[in-house]
Formats: sequence, C-alpha cells, structure tokens
Amino acid sequence: MTVLPPPGSPDIEIARAVKPWPIFEVAQRKLGVAAHALIPYGHYKAKLDLAQLDASKPQGKLVLVTAITPTPAGEGKTTTSIGLTDALNAIGISTSVCLREPSLGPCFGVKGGAAGGGRAQAIPMEDLNLHFTGDFHAITSAHNLLAALIDNHIHWGNELNLDSRRISWRRVMDMNDRALRNTLIGLGGPAHGQPRESGFDITVASEIMAILCLADDRKDLQRRLGNIIIGRDRDNKTVTARELGADGAMTVLLKEAIQPNLIQTLEHNPALIHGGPFANIAHGCNSVMATRTALGLTDVVVTEAGFGADLGAEKFIDIKCRLSGLKPDAAVLVCTVRALKMQGGVAKNDLDAANVDAVKAGSDNLKRHIQNMQQFGLNPLVAINRFPTDTPEELAAIKEVCLSLGAGVEEANHWAEGGEGAKALAEGVKAILDAGSPEVTHLYDDAMPIDEKIRTIATRLYGASDVQFNIAAQKQLDEIHQLGFGELPVCIAKTPYSFSSDPHLLGAPTDHILPVRELRLMAGAGFVVAICGDVMTMPGLPRKPAALSISLDDQGDIVGLF
Amino acid sequence: MTVLPPPGSPDIEIARAVKPWPIFEVAQRKLGVAAHALIPYGHYKAKLDLAQLDASKPQGKLVLVTAITPTPAGEGKTTTSIGLTDALNAIGISTSVCLREPSLGPCFGVKGGAAGGGRAQAIPMEDLNLHFTGDFHAITSAHNLLAALIDNHIHWGNELNLDSRRISWRRVMDMNDRALRNTLIGLGGPAHGQPRESGFDITVASEIMAILCLADDRKDLQRRLGNIIIGRDRDNKTVTARELGADGAMTVLLKEAIQPNLIQTLEHNPALIHGGPFANIAHGCNSVMATRTALGLTDVVVTEAGFGADLGAEKFIDIKCRLSGLKPDAAVLVCTVRALKMQGGVAKNDLDAANVDAVKAGSDNLKRHIQNMQQFGLNPLVAINRFPTDTPEELAAIKEVCLSLGAGVEEANHWAEGGEGAKALAEGVKAILDAGSPEVTHLYDDAMPIDEKIRTIATRLYGASDVQFNIAAQKQLDEIHQLGFGELPVCIAKTPYSFSSDPHLLGAPTDHILPVRELRLMAGAGFVVAICGDVMTMPGLPRKPAALSISLDDQGDIVGLF
Repeated sequence: MTVLPPPGSPDIEIARAVKPWPIFEVAQRKLGVAAHALIPYGHYKAKLDLAQLDASKPQGKLVLVTAITPTPAGEGKTTTSIGLTDALNAIGISTSVCLREPSLGPCFGVKGGAAGGGRAQAIPMEDLNLHFTGDFHAITSAHNLLAALIDNHIHWGNELNLDSRRISWRRVMDMNDRALRNTLIGLGGPAHGQPRESGFDITVASEIMAILCLADDRKDLQRRLGNIIIGRDRDNKTVTARELGADGAMTVLLKEAIQPNLIQTLEHNPALIHGGPFANIAHGCNSVMATRTALGLTDVVVTEAGFGADLGAEKFIDIKCRLSGLKPDAAVLVCTVRALKMQGGVAKNDLDAANVDAVKAGSDNLKRHIQNMQQFGLNPLVAINRFPTDTPEELAAIKEVCLSLGAGVEEANHWAEGGEGAKALAEGVKAILDAGSPEVTHLYDDAMPIDEKIRTIATRLYGASDVQFNIAAQKQLDEIHQLGFGELPVCIAKTPYSFSSDPHLLGAPTDHILPVRELRLMAGAGFVVAICGDVMTMPGLPRKPAALSISLDDQGDIVGLF
Repeated sequence: MTVLPPPGSPDIEIARAVKPWPIFEVAQRKLGVAAHALIPYGHYKAKLDLAQLDASKPQGKLVLVTAITPTPAGEGKTTTSIGLTDALNAIGISTSVCLREPSLGPCFGVKGGAAGGGRAQAIPMEDLNLHFTGDFHAITSAHNLLAALIDNHIHWGNELNLDSRRISWRRVMDMNDRALRNTLIGLGGPAHGQPRESGFDITVASEIMAILCLADDRKDLQRRLGNIIIGRDRDNKTVTARELGADGAMTVLLKEAIQPNLIQTLEHNPALIHGGPFANIAHGCNSVMATRTALGLTDVVVTEAGFGADLGAEKFIDIKCRLSGLKPDAAVLVCTVRALKMQGGVAKNDLDAANVDAVKAGSDNLKRHIQNMQQFGLNPLVAINRFPTDTPEELAAIKEVCLSLGAGVEEANHWAEGGEGAKALAEGVKAILDAGSPEVTHLYDDAMPIDEKIRTIATRLYGASDVQFNIAAQKQLDEIHQLGFGELPVCIAKTPYSFSSDPHLLGAPTDHILPVRELRLMAGAGFVVAICGDVMTMPGLPRKPAALSISLDDQGDIVGLF
C-alpha cells in the first residue's frame, strides 16, 4: 500500500507519491470501458471515444457540488467533489467525478494549479495544468481561425459589407497577457489588412469554450459555432460565423477536443475532466458531453459548478440543465468555518483564530444559500470542509443553522484523509439518492423576457430589491428582444464574493440594487450575459509571476508550478 | 493485401485505403522499441520517450534528400524521402524517414497538406496536418509566455530598463493572419500596459522552433532558450530571456514537445516527424533529436532539407550538421522534368507538353546543384521523380547531364507505385552507402567573419560575383561582430526559385550580386539570418480560403482539407 506524505505536505508531493494506474486499467476496472474505446494521450490520460461507447446503459444519478460565498482562496468544491467521489467508491457505489479543465495561462501568474488538493486530487496534475490533451489549444485555434477569416474577408473586398468598427469577435490566447487587451491591428499599409481596433481575451473566456461545453454532439457543435455573431454589417444587421462560411473548418479543428478526457483520482477513481468556461461571463461547468458520458458509465456522477451557489448552482440548473435536459438528483453545499468567519466580518489574516461569534454572524450567508437551493427543489446536504483550525463550537454553530432549515450536514476531512475522511458525507449523499429524485425546477421560464429573468434571479436569490439597467444595457436589451433571442437563459457576470454586485456587502444583504452595465448576446453558446460589475476577460501577470521560478530539475521534474 | 486506389487518386483516398498498424506494432517490429518507451497519442501516433531508449546501439547511415531549384508546387522531396524509405525497407534494409511537421495555419489557406503524396505518404495525414501531438501549440505557448513576461516586466516598473521601442521579440500564432503582422499593443490606459508597436509571426517562424530543432537535449534546450535576445535596454545593450528569468518556464512548456513523434508510411515503415522551422529565416530541417534517435534505431535514416539544395542542403550541412556533429553518408538530389523545363524558360501552363530542348536548356540548373553538392564532398545520386507526362527523350537528356558530371541517376516512380517504384533508387543509395562514408566538409570555418561566410556561399554556390550589404545590414554586421557572435553560421533567407535573389533569373545565373538587406541575430538558435529579398514571416489567407470548404461529413471524416 502506498504511504502518503503527511497531511499538509505540498499537493505535488502527495500527488507524486501515488503511482497512477495505467489509464486503460482505470477505464476497464472502474468504467467497464474497453481499450479500443480509449484514445490514449500518454499512459495516464485518455479521451473517451464516444463513437465506441455503449450509450444504452441506464443513466446514473447526478450530484451537484456547490458552495457558499467563497473566500478568494476558494472553499474546496473541487477537493470535496474528488473526496466525495473517492468516498462513494469506498462505500461500494460506482462513482465518477466530472470537473473543468484548468487554464494554462494563470499557472504562470500566481503559483498553484487546479486539480483538487491534499489527499483529494486528480492526477497527473502537471499534465492537467499544462497542455493536457490539447483541448484549449484546439479552442484557441478555432477561435482565431474565425478571427483571421473575418479580417481576410474585409481585406479581399468585404462582400458581406462588414462594419470593421463593429466586429465583436476578438482573438484569444491561453496566457495572462494584459498588453493584448486592447490593440490596433491591420497596420502597415494596404497589403496588411484593414486597420481596426480589437483585442485578445484568455481562451477560457472564448464563446467557443462555452459552446463546446453545451454542445450535445458534433452536429450540435457545428450548429452552435455557425450561430456565433461576429459583428454587424454596415446596415447594423448581425452577421454570423455561418454566413462567413467558417463553421465547418472550426468544427474540424475541434473534432478531437469534444471527446471527454479521462484521468484518475489519487484513489484511482475515474475523473472526467473536460472543458473549462469562465464562471462569470460563461456558465462555469464542465461539458455536457462529459457529464452525460459519465452518467452512462457509473451509478453516480459528482460534478461541480464554479463560484458560490448564487452563480454556480443557478447557472448549472438554469443554463446547463435547461439546455441539455440533465437534472441533479442531489446537491452538496460546501461550507467552511473560514468562509463564514469572513462573511461575519473577520479580516483575512485573522481567519485562523477561533471565533464562534463571527461564524454565527456569517451564517446568514449559509442560510440564504440553503434556502436558494431549496427554491430549486434541491434540499442540500451541507459539507463542512474541515480545516485543522476549526473548533468544535464553530462546527456546532454551523450544524445548528443547517438543521434549523431542514438541511443535512456532515463534516468532511478528505483533504487530510482522502476518501476515508468523506465517508460520512458519502453516506449522507447515498441516503438522499436512495430517497428518490427531487422535483428540480428552473427559476424562470424560457418565455420570460430577459430583463425579468435577471430581476427574478436578483430578487429571489440575491436579496436585491430591484435591477437597474444603464442606458447602454437597456438598448442592448431591446435589441436582443427584437432579434428574437428573448427566450435564451441569462448568465449573470458579477462578483462571486457577495450576493450583491458589491464584494464588500457580506452575509445575506437585502435591499440592494443589481446594476446591469451591459448585455452580451452569445447566440452560439445560447445565453445572454448580463454584466453587473467589473469583468476581466484577459488577466494580467503579477509583479513577480510564478513563471520566474518554474523550471525542470535534474530529473526532468517540474519545480515551482505548485 | 490492401488494394489501393489507382495512381492519380486524391492523396486522402489512398491514405484512407490503408489500415495503419497500431503504432506500438510499428515501434516494436520496425524499431525494436518496446511499448513502455512510447508515449501514445491515440492509436497511430506516439512520442518516443528518450529517457527509455537504449542509446548504446551503433549509429546508422544518414541519407540527405535535397532537390534542384523547385517549381512553386515543389519537386517531391518529401514524397521521394518516403518512397525511398519504403524501397530501402523493401530491399531488406532497416530504414526510417525523418521529416518536418507541417504547420496548421496554411491548411486553411490553400488546399493541401504536407505528408508526401500518391503512394508515398505518411499517415495518419489528417492528424499530421491538424494538431498532431501538440508540439506547435507548445512552441506557441512558450513563445508567447516570453512575450507576456516582457510586457509584464515593463508594466511593473521595468527593472531591466528595457527600451520598449527596441523589443525585437514578437508574438506568434499558428494561423495565416495578415492583420496581426503589424499591431499596436498595450492600449487602453495605465492598467493595460505600456503602448508599443509589435506584431505576430506564424509559429514556424519562431526562433523557438529553430531552437527545438537544434537542441541536443532538455538542458541544451534551456540554455538556448536563455540565450534568446529579446531586445535592447535604454543603453542599447542586448537583453536575453535568461536575464528576464523566462527560460525555466519556457522549458517546462516544451517538456513533451522535444520528444520525437513516430508515425508510419503507407507501407508501415517508421516516420519520425518532428519540428518544422521555416526554410528561409531558419534552417528548414527536422529536429536533431529526431534524426539522432532514428540513427540509433535503424540502419539507414532518410531525411530532407527544405527548398532546393542551394538553401536546404547548404543549411543542413553548414547549420544542422555543424551544430550537432551529424554527417550525411549520401545525398539524393531530386529532379523533375517539369522543373528543368521551367528552368529552361517554359511557362507554368505549358509544363505538361513534351519539350526536350527546354529540358536541355534548363539543365544548367541541375548541373550547378550537382557541382555544389560535390563541393561539400557529396557526390549526389540524382532521383528523377517521375511524372506521367515525362518522355523518354527528356529523361535521357537528364541522365546524360548527370553522367557527364560523374553523378549517378535513377528514375523513381514511388508516387504511382510506392516503395516498389523506388527500388532502383534504393539500390543506388545502397551502393553508395556500401562504398564507405564520404569526407563531408563545411563550406566555411566558424572563424570566418559573417560577411565572408555570406560571400563564400554566394560566390561558391550561387554563382554571384559579390555580396552587397545595405547600410542597415552593414551596421548590424558590425554589431554582431562586436557582440562576439561572429563565429555563428549564417542562414540565408532568399527566394528558393533562383540561385540568385531574383526569382526570375533561371538556370544557373552568374555575375549577379546578392543584396543583404538585413541581418538578424538568432542567439538562441545559434545562427545569423541574412535577409536577401522579401521574407514573409506571417502569411495571409487567399481570397477564397480553403477553410470555407473544409468540414466534417456525416461519418465524422474531414472533407475539403486535401
């Protein structure tokens, strides 16, 4: 049996102490998938060849892992998803976990990757955080091919009469590169295109990332790619990627990228890691194809949604589930003592000190998240993601809040103990699943106007008294309705650090107003983004980027990445 | 036995008619490489894990395939390299072929990929032409990480005192995108960096591509990456990537990309396809690591160098062989009836008509290429790459020229017949290899000043009477010598369509002058580029890009790419 380094050891040391199973073995023993249905990428990563899978198997149960309002460090949704998966397998339930792929660019900014942590990780973590199976590179290529075709079209005579001032399709790069946010392109004279303003976003912010994650299959992918609105013509009419003839070639570039990736947890359970849309301007969930595939292969599938439940769970249900027909059978709401203290007003540097009063003060936040989940028809099981500094009084205070609202609650210590530490949580989830499927409802109907959808979310989930559209957003709203896209769901882009649009409003604020600054129509992905606050779609590197201390050691192992 | 479509069928139809062997089988049966030393990428592609290979095997013989001055369609070096490899295996000699990886971007411009043609192809050709094993994406990431670190350094206070007007390191993208050639970046105010002029090249033009192809191993790779000159500081002193601290993270991004890729020919012989530097501003050869690996695994290795022998063979010997210690044991000079007619003054549309006089008139070109190869100590075997329109008189005229100079000559019909069609050529190569290794010499010594090196190449190979440096180039020359880089080899960037810098000067022109417009110091790659004419480092898309007709058919197969 593998002896793991003690809890608190660096994630990378724990990850390297475990010898992964060959991916063929994970597929065969844990998914019943034969070797010919795997497309290997090295010995420990593979894509699942959807054409080779037997889709007739009964569908498993879906468990959504979401969280209260997080601290900037996050409350451990990924870690809990992985720990719960290992624990469910440990109590005899065949379970897989579905997660997002991390982005390459940010690895070179602040140290740290995204593959869980402690004894609840997905491995191989270096591969996952670097090029992985090339999905994001393929998305980058498809995105930038469309951009090149747009400028090329203008260069050669502009048959579609595109208004070069109104091209909304930018370029992308999987890199934190602030200097590319705002650019002038096409300079240098007539042989080098038409000068115009444009810029770059990071690849995870690409509409194609959201499309890949919402597509049902290759055909649906191409349909959605064709629907992308690239800008306006001189009559102010929207122009799509299909009108430019770009959808076929873009689909070809994404041919392999749409197949879900398989790796394993530290305890050799299947992890399907596929797609990684932003959780602000996009819906923040792994691909529909991965979730659906996993549901056909294991009895239970654990998946997470980005940010707190106000954003993550809402988008999971109102966007991902609505568009795909998926439906969660249970929800786990991750909560930490630290986050509640922060919501109770404690400063970041004092979060380690015991403070049961702050936990109680902050628990309004937890309450509202529980009640919000209950509004969707999902009575959540609260998972207290344990930290060594937690005190019995603090834990008791949290439990009291949960029980008072009729929600279950379990401590989970997977970070220190792996699946073993999350067995109580797993038993709790099992009990919910055994009790039958809940009646999950969306928060609003397709037919509701876009502004009413936003108002519904803001008043029913955020505690806002109203929504305020500024003049630009009001104009965009009218246009979206006129164009016939009023039936799309909405995707709120706001701070994850408060129910409101103000990150400093803690707890469960009421009577605030949600300001809508801008609406962006994502006709390909199939939702309307409501920008409520600052949204950064191309991060920058910090003063001392992690890149400066990343290198290979003499054995060829990576140092400085984690 | 596989029944192949008749000669002249589209390359893709021929390629799809062959069922490839699992790549493990190619490795085991043809290279003696066990499965654990392969890193699979799907079932038919793999990287060779250099750490797992037994490097103690005796070194094989190296055969360089080069060509006369090509027509714009190319004279079939890749096709001949593959056909010769299949033929050598067919006559019982264990042989592998080493080639460059094609670039993704151009696939969407003009229809057609780069994997040989007819019955001499490397498969799977779709994978090879699209993302393949992700090497070019990794190079793009490493290149752009360095760029982001430069702008980030300036943004946060510019400790190195970089002159933002003199940053020579641009960004890259594997896309034909003319609008990115000249850009203004860092616009939008102080939060978004320092505005400055910059631009993008296509990934194959990245210095990192040349570095990857010349590196001996990971350590040498990092050393070369660190040596990259990114620009100047305010005292006009050169600044390197190492001074910025970027070399470690760049190496990490290239960790997998430096391992050679293995695929197979239509006849299941091993093809190591790795790296793809431009043949104008770079040296145009596959990686040293691939060639060296292949030499440790098969008795003969066939490899090609980009463009005609004036550029390709010269750079192969004076750059790749000089820097790596490799040495060719034989050279094959590919020649076509069509290309000689073109050199004899026939218009492009009349090349199919029999015209023995034009062949004779154009054969001065062939003569000079033969004599040039003989200057290197390599008496070439001329391979007449057969076309159905060739006449016996035309073929006889070519043979007479070759024999008059003491060079061997063989017809080769691999395009129509596969390895079987190149058996005579293979026997010819075998005879040369059996006769012992030639004394190959470089054209110049390291110690010769840069301008003299250029003059030596121009007068001894191109028939030029002199070299003329314009004022800017003269200044750069002095600087390169002052900086202590005078001992580097030179890499001439000129038109491939003439021995001179004027593409209209056909045959074997003499008394012309080679104008040197610019010198670029590639301190990381380890050569000085002499720009002699227009050089395009970011192609554009044509009026009707191939992308518009590329898509997936109902079976999920790609149409329109080839």
